[in-house]
Amino acid sequence: MVKIKMIEINKTVGIIGANGYTGSELVRLLAYHPHVSLSFLYSRSNSGTKISDLYPDLATVCEMVLTDKPEEVDILFLCLPHKESQNWLTQNPVKDSTLVIDLGNDFRLDGNLGNRNFIYGLPEINKKQLSGAKSIANPGCFATAIQLALLPLAQKGLLYEVYTTGITGSTGAGQSLQATTHFTWRNDNISAYKTLTHQHVDEILQQLVSFNTNEISMNFVPWRGDFARGIFTSSTVKTDLELSDINQLYQDFYADAPFVKVSEKAIDLKQVVNTNRCVIHIEKSGNVAVIHSAIDNLLKGASGQAVQNMNIAMGWEENSGLNLKPIAF
Amino acid sequence: MVKIKMIEINKTVGIIGANGYTGSELVRLLAYHPHVSLSFLYSRSNSGTKISDLYPDLATVCEMVLTDKPEEVDILFLCLPHKESQNWLTQNPVKDSTLVIDLGNDFRLDGNLGNRNFIYGLPEINKKQLSGAKSIANPGCFATAIQLALLPLAQKGLLYEVYTTGITGSTGAGQSLQATTHFTWRNDNISAYKTLTHQHVDEILQQLVSFNTNEISMNFVPWRGDFARGIFTSSTVKTDLELSDINQLYQDFYADAPFVKVSEKAIDLKQVVNTNRCVIHIEKSGNVAVIHSAIDNLLKGASGQAVQNMNIAMGWEENSGLNLKPIAF
Amino acid sequence: MVKIKMIEINKTVGIIGANGYTGSELVRLLAYHPHVSLSFLYSRSNSGTKISDLYPDLATVCEMVLTDKPEEVDILFLCLPHKESQNWLTQNPVKDSTLVIDLGNDFRLDGNLGNRNFIYGLPEINKKQLSGAKSIANPGCFATAIQLALLPLAQKGLLYEVYTTGITGSTGAGQSLQATTHFTWRNDNISAYKTLTHQHVDEILQQLVSFNTNEISMNFVPWRGDFARGIFTSSTVKTDLELSDINQLYQDFYADAPFVKVSEKAIDLKQVVNTNRCVIHIEKSGNVAVIHSAIDNLLKGASGQAVQNMNIAMGWEENSGLNLKPIAF
Amino acid sequence: MVKIKMIEINKTVGIIGANGYTGSELVRLLAYHPHVSLSFLYSRSNSGTKISDLYPDLATVCEMVLTDKPEEVDILFLCLPHKESQNWLTQNPVKDSTLVIDLGNDFRLDGNLGNRNFIYGLPEINKKQLSGAKSIANPGCFATAIQLALLPLAQKGLLYEVYTTGITGSTGAGQSLQATTHFTWRNDNISAYKTLTHQHVDEILQQLVSFNTNEISMNFVPWRGDFARGIFTSSTVKTDLELSDINQLYQDFYADAPFVKVSEKAIDLKQVVNTNRCVIHIEKSGNVAVIHSAIDNLLKGASGQAVQNMNIAMGWEENSGLNLKPIAF
Repeated sequence: MVKIKMIEINKTVGIIGANGYTGSELVRLLAYHPHVSLSFLYSRSNSGTKISDLYPDLATVCEMVLTDKPEEVDILFLCLPHKESQNWLTQNPVKDSTLVIDLGNDFRLDGNLGNRNFIYGLPEINKKQLSGAKSIANPGCFATAIQLALLPLAQKGLLYEVYTTGITGSTGAGQSLQATTHFTWRNDNISAYKTLTHQHVDEILQQLVSFNTNEISMNFVPWRGDFARGIFTSSTVKTDLELSDINQLYQDFYADAPFVKVSEKAIDLKQVVNTNRCVIHIEKSGNVAVIHSAIDNLLKGASGQAVQNMNIAMGWEENSGLNLKPIAF
Repeated sequence: MVKIKMIEINKTVGIIGANGYTGSELVRLLAYHPHVSLSFLYSRSNSGTKISDLYPDLATVCEMVLTDKPEEVDILFLCLPHKESQNWLTQNPVKDSTLVIDLGNDFRLDGNLGNRNFIYGLPEINKKQLSGAKSIANPGCFATAIQLALLPLAQKGLLYEVYTTGITGSTGAGQSLQATTHFTWRNDNISAYKTLTHQHVDEILQQLVSFNTNEISMNFVPWRGDFARGIFTSSTVKTDLELSDINQLYQDFYADAPFVKVSEKAIDLKQVVNTNRCVIHIEKSGNVAVIHSAIDNLLKGASGQAVQNMNIAMGWEENSGLNLKPIAF
Repeated sequence: MVKIKMIEINKTVGIIGANGYTGSELVRLLAYHPHVSLSFLYSRSNSGTKISDLYPDLATVCEMVLTDKPEEVDILFLCLPHKESQNWLTQNPVKDSTLVIDLGNDFRLDGNLGNRNFIYGLPEINKKQLSGAKSIANPGCFATAIQLALLPLAQKGLLYEVYTTGITGSTGAGQSLQATTHFTWRNDNISAYKTLTHQHVDEILQQLVSFNTNEISMNFVPWRGDFARGIFTSSTVKTDLELSDINQLYQDFYADAPFVKVSEKAIDLKQVVNTNRCVIHIEKSGNVAVIHSAIDNLLKGASGQAVQNMNIAMGWEENSGLNLKPIAF
Repeated sequence: MVKIKMIEINKTVGIIGANGYTGSELVRLLAYHPHVSLSFLYSRSNSGTKISDLYPDLATVCEMVLTDKPEEVDILFLCLPHKESQNWLTQNPVKDSTLVIDLGNDFRLDGNLGNRNFIYGLPEINKKQLSGAKSIANPGCFATAIQLALLPLAQKGLLYEVYTTGITGSTGAGQSLQATTHFTWRNDNISAYKTLTHQHVDEILQQLVSFNTNEISMNFVPWRGDFARGIFTSSTVKTDLELSDINQLYQDFYADAPFVKVSEKAIDLKQVVNTNRCVIHIEKSGNVAVIHSAIDNLLKGASGQAVQNMNIAMGWEENSGLNLKPIAF
């Protein structure tokens, strides 16, 4: 059998901050994406170095040299430290026709910058607005995992007080060397950080409240985990809904979400590592429900979701370049 | 300088179920304990085998052969699967003068068996009753970590609704081979189990409520961790107390507890691994407080606490044989 | 720009023993392969179960039900315990036109079975014979990593005495529960097994000697590692060649091997995890050279190489379905 | 029964470089040692800080403040970066009667400094010279593990060519933050470093050759492991001795060595973690023997051995303060 496939190719892509974890993960994804080609990888600090010298897994996959001279491209990803995207865009004007996807948190709460208006890039709620969008604010990693766990309840006005614990891999802390990313310290270790004060809480509440007339309070305790990739969260809420109704509510809500799987069986983190998927599992006892969710923080929590957003914005299949082999083991 | 020290030695000790994790951990502790000597190690399934063949780290430390013939001893530890201690004691009568310490959960909720009345062996609340006791029900591992985190609030009647997440090492699941203790599955993995229904909740509530006139509700989500030893918990509660007052309350409550450290700095799991200690750290935002606690599940959560209870019951220094070098790294 | 691509699709594939690690890894690879579709997944022990219930990472990727009724297919993969492939083929005759790829070790040393003659499936030496082949014996994992490290020297007759240490992830031991795959035991642990007697030594020597007139002696010490995926090996040999000449020899030898990278920089295991690649790095001091190599034992060491062999046998691009995103972190 | 024990106490101890891994590990050991008390902990960079603020596991164990003012003590441990011990001793004269134990490599190859002559502190060969010694050069970690594996053969003149691979935990790299000690990089990763050129080879050969009339060649490939504590080595040699004779040779050689266990069963790293022990296991095939050895790099490979040397030098029981509970799991 012979099938004829027409592929529109070769939108050009640039990555600002390609030397970091999320930037290099984008390179891994885009190197094999069917509809784009990488035009440049920008890094001020590592200009002149091959990306594959920083990340040897990229040898033979991408041998581009990092540059400090950005070019005009069709699609631009910003992988900068938080608060630097706005500066960069101000200092390096970008054509209006360029799709800009920011992986930082500069435009998540307030998307306005000049004549750009950044859409919050959680496709499971904003797919329509993302279609054809030119400016996308990619959500935070914990924010993604927790919102996906809570959105179906929130949009029904059934969410009031939430108690969430989440654990994240070391890649969430970036590539800088810190006491808490030292192997000797972190191996086999668990600790809490930013208790009740994590910056993603505002981002989460802004979205949840947009659905909800009532006030929602979120108590979030983030933990550092002794693994490199992934986020696992458990959120405890009170509800009178039956478990079967909750499951149905979630199945319906995510009926068109190719990367979200609501499972009636127990989930675990490695089901999603090295994929763009989110798995959700709900349990109930008395009037208390617990919603567990898991994602790969660098993929559905960052670079994978950025590619998903690009696909939607450009009108491509949502999973283009995202059929990733899970690590599984 | 020469110091003369008189050491009363050699209370005899037997361990029932010495072939399991908590049993072998008792051997590690008691082999170097100044006031006891091991008389026999009982195991039905491994009778005839040297304990150091099952646990080669014990080579040169303890070369005893496991037996299925218990002897009369001064102190008897029961390290049996839950629900088997009662059977064993019924079938193998023990002299009234023998100190029996049960590491299972048979006598934690109801301590009565014939003319024995098991004292709940959490020294931080029951030190007086434990002094001279002949029957001790050693607490569960999660139950220890969570109670120590909550007791000071409970005894002041300030505890109402608690949301706790706890993570445990694989030793908590015992030595049997299961899908969830397979290395390939568990390495780098996180998962929830017994959500809201963990058997330790009843044990915790029974103690907390004994202090408290009001009702307490406990919502506990246990997680499996990708490490072998240790428990880390975070409990979220509402309180109008100032953080400094909470810290003072905890410092006062644990003033005489040599193994509990209330820290004003962040804690992490490895601070306590391979020790009998519990570290506690409290944080607050608005009217919400989070109490973190960490223990080694096999020591303060099991065999170490059993030795601590023995020391108290026998009138020895509470830390005899428990000045353990932390793993630290 | 619009590009028209004609894709010949849909050779049918069956997997015998799809319930094991290498079988399920094949499912992960073939689910997204452009030229094949899965016809059936065979498992005697798990017949009637969905593959995604055994491996939940496959949910939404492949929801096929395991069967004990094989069908006629174009391509058949055997993922059976060693020594069972021969039995299976004898009891379940397969059409001569079917491509059979055996991942066990039944046909590696002696490829004859009836009118089938299995080609040793190491593409880096046998690409020509594999093209159009109908019977392929897929190499062992350690055998792949060590041969790729030594072949360039062997084919020049420069290999005499080799001292190799290799370390493997727990997936190499399969999914059965054993004392040495228990998380509590294996976490943070290192141990040796099958010292000097590993079954892959014969497989390695048979290939190396085929190039070499002199006798080669191989002293191989395999270690169990405390990670799930991957193999890292270091082989020490004596040679008078300059390091630059050795590097040139290796570069030349692997000039047409898309999955082998000879690196002049230090390598590490995670450069290849979740990829089909092998990285090699050579160091020298005096007249002693050490050749390091690393692969993912389930991919280049098993299922990935099986797909590579299928691609070559069928005349497809060698990397079809094998452009895998590295785990990297 | 009452036993009267006379304990001579309270030799004073100072630690130079107490803020590093080996220094803090000495604090852990000496805090509970029966014959010494810590007088001061010296650190130039952390002067004024409590040691328990750097290492919170030491809270309640040792709350001393680091100082930059050394005092006169009976016993002085130097835990300085390599090459700095000599400078320190030159600039800070120490009384001749003070026992100085250097954990660096300054005096391992040449023990002379003024009127001090440092004895190489491997008790298994130098116990007599160490008794009463005032200057001891504590061996390196790999040097300890490898020498203990080879000494019995060397002293019989049966050692010629050795091929050793060894793997070390991250604590071997010290507490500085480096790319290769970043958790994200090192977790689940294996890599080689200092191939054939590790600085311990000279140290090993100097000792081995002192027994041996023939030349010995050592080919050593060190690996970085993905765990924090421990060293595992496998050394391959040729020998005509029967395995039983080799085992007998080793048993005899270590008959008086309380911390060395020659095992006829397979060994693994965790048998010795958090202990001062070395376990050795020998296997043979044809005329090739492999000797495996395992130690805790911070204990028998550093601070534990330093305490053992102190005990011997002072005439105390060799295992004083060294009956450590193994981590085991």
